[in-house]
Amino acid sequence: MSAQREVGIDRKRLEQSIDELGRIGATPRGGLTRVALTDEDKRGRDLMVRWMRDAGLRVSIDQMGNIFGERAGREPLPPVMMGSHIDSVPTGGKYDGQLGVLCGLETIRALDTHRIRTRHPVTLAIFTNEEGARFQPAMIASGVMAGKIALEDAYNVRDKDGIRLVDALERIGYLGSEPCVPRPLRAYLELHIEQGPFLEEEGRSVGVVDGIVGISWSRLSIHGVQDHAGPTPMRIRHDALVAAAEIVTGVRTIAKELGGDLVTTVGNLVVHPNIPNAIPGKITLSIDMRDPRDETLEVARRCLDAVVKAACEREGVRYELEHYWRVPFTPFAPDVVAAVERAATAVGAPFRHILSGAGHDAQYMAAIGPTGMIFVPSRDGRSHCEEEFTPMDDIEHGAATLFLAVLDLAERV
Amino acid sequence: MSAQREVGIDRKRLEQSIDELGRIGATPRGGLTRVALTDEDKRGRDLMVRWMRDAGLRVSIDQMGNIFGERAGREPLPPVMMGSHIDSVPTGGKYDGQLGVLCGLETIRALDTHRIRTRHPVTLAIFTNEEGARFQPAMIASGVMAGKIALEDAYNVRDKDGIRLVDALERIGYLGSEPCVPRPLRAYLELHIEQGPFLEEEGRSVGVVDGIVGISWSRLSIHGVQDHAGPTPMRIRHDALVAAAEIVTGVRTIAKELGGDLVTTVGNLVVHPNIPNAIPGKITLSIDMRDPRDETLEVARRCLDAVVKAACEREGVRYELEHYWRVPFTPFAPDVVAAVERAATAVGAPFRHILSGAGHDAQYMAAIGPTGMIFVPSRDGRSHCEEEFTPMDDIEHGAATLFLAVLDLAERV
Repeated sequence: MSAQREVGIDRKRLEQSIDELGRIGATPRGGLTRVALTDEDKRGRDLMVRWMRDAGLRVSIDQMGNIFGERAGREPLPPVMMGSHIDSVPTGGKYDGQLGVLCGLETIRALDTHRIRTRHPVTLAIFTNEEGARFQPAMIASGVMAGKIALEDAYNVRDKDGIRLVDALERIGYLGSEPCVPRPLRAYLELHIEQGPFLEEEGRSVGVVDGIVGISWSRLSIHGVQDHAGPTPMRIRHDALVAAAEIVTGVRTIAKELGGDLVTTVGNLVVHPNIPNAIPGKITLSIDMRDPRDETLEVARRCLDAVVKAACEREGVRYELEHYWRVPFTPFAPDVVAAVERAATAVGAPFRHILSGAGHDAQYMAAIGPTGMIFVPSRDGRSHCEEEFTPMDDIEHGAATLFLAVLDLAERV
Repeated sequence: MSAQREVGIDRKRLEQSIDELGRIGATPRGGLTRVALTDEDKRGRDLMVRWMRDAGLRVSIDQMGNIFGERAGREPLPPVMMGSHIDSVPTGGKYDGQLGVLCGLETIRALDTHRIRTRHPVTLAIFTNEEGARFQPAMIASGVMAGKIALEDAYNVRDKDGIRLVDALERIGYLGSEPCVPRPLRAYLELHIEQGPFLEEEGRSVGVVDGIVGISWSRLSIHGVQDHAGPTPMRIRHDALVAAAEIVTGVRTIAKELGGDLVTTVGNLVVHPNIPNAIPGKITLSIDMRDPRDETLEVARRCLDAVVKAACEREGVRYELEHYWRVPFTPFAPDVVAAVERAATAVGAPFRHILSGAGHDAQYMAAIGPTGMIFVPSRDGRSHCEEEFTPMDDIEHGAATLFLAVLDLAERV
């Protein structure tokens, strides 16, 4: 089947856009380093703004640097908004984020090609700093928009070099004036790579996303006794890294014991002073835990408390454990999910219902208006790496599904 | 008792020198950051050279930046050399290294005060980059002097910013012209803090060091599969940090299982990409193992091979393990050890025989000439940290022991 002839998506045009935007921040091994508010991010934004203007969109920038391009509808109604992000993690891939933005742009272009004027306006959104690789937390800009994070707090967040987010925004020329506040929405729809193995394993092109799993982030500091690795006998040691190692093992065990869909990860761990001949005196580390059931996450947090306490007591080290970020399970709007399913059926794309294990701006947008997501497969389930890949046939199915779902939602009340 | 009246060490002068040199690179919490070939190291060297010249020493700098100050003897014989280092680890203490240099200087000054002209010359040496905190390996400059490391290789070693050792030496003005080669020695004697708990625990001022334990350094790279911490189910993960954690625990277990004097440490561990929401794709870490018995170190290395293999196979990750540095047990020269014991007895210092668990320049010097060491206590056994401390009473006993031992050795054939 050719989605192009039936529903107006131009596969070749979409593929060219993916290639062109993917060259900004491209890594030698086929990946992408386009960290939020860097020069690469600026160049990516500039290209997107040019393309959006070329497509006749009215472009505006809000106080968090979010970019909106609006295509007028037949009536002055709330828009159907499509969105995602164009920032990446360091040595990430060229599908995470930018694919959703470019499939949104392709939807706009296809509406133009077919001279379709929808009843509701259609808006394309690009959110700032979705990845959280440079400024924490992730999805900070949609968080501000949804009123979950104070603008002032977001502005004062600093990267590892001490640079404030607001100054980084200003430096690249994307500190806009439009208020970053909730706005009336007919619907919010985000196409994104699955970042997991399920669609590929089952040979499906499209995931109809029912919601986003709950996320718990904790941070731990362990204070041992820094000492010389040679003359310090084992019996008097208080080694922060030995305690940390037990905790990393324990965090893995929590997922094994509780089972189900729970995933647990220690992704960040820093050793001080970090030289071969000193017993580590201090460790900081992160714990990321996710599950669709909020109750399971609560149990996992209690398990983590116990694991940390036991490991640190055993080694005789002090610690501070902080559960500092928690997002509950986010169910998507039934009518938007239904529109996505209808669209995938009409396209003829093999699809399944699925949950998102990753956070997305859609998580915060769900607090503003009816929200849904469309997943396309990730080869080997991999993402946040240079090997990230989605076959063009699947992308075409996903983009066509987005196009039809937007048409559907933009015509209904 | 007052060592000063009996043997000529001026406690107050020594204390003042410790304070004055300790101010160069002093940290707010009483420690020292005077990393090799930095501006602080240069300022410390400049002060030492001034003091050495003030004491009438003939100062020369060799190709590795080692500083020698020679006091002529009555006969043109090989000198008794005293030495240590003035570089520190980051946020280290103000006793490790500089105490040995300053007790050596005090010995020279006391010889002057008492107008003693020894039969052999007496030389004070300050070795470059003993700690190995900036340039690896540690003790690189005495290693070159002993012919164990090629000068060319040492010059081309780079710090983490890519700066070559030879360029750093030149930058601070300590790239000397004197050949860095073995030279005839009557004896080499180094006073140093114990860096372990034994002297303090037993209430002794002086350790008569019989030798230095064997040291084995290994490095390990683990290659897992970097992936997103959310949508990647536990069953398909290959987490480099989970494997590393098992290895850190296993390295601790090796010391527990083999027992005796074996100490094992993972002091350096670096995670890539090191962000909370990515499964670590790559880890590098160091393994430091020490024991007086070379056979035990061999067994420990085989245990390490097995621990690494098992942990990496369990997690399904690739690895490279390299045992890249090995120093066998270094016994000190019986006549030098005997001279130290005689001196400690004459001083009236409570002493015991002891082994050094840390590497010292004395280790390489033992390959050049008859070598020994004098230890003084470390409070709580701590070193390589800002809390490093040795009481002045113990320092006086140690300095007096050094003075008498040097006198003894410099008079005999």
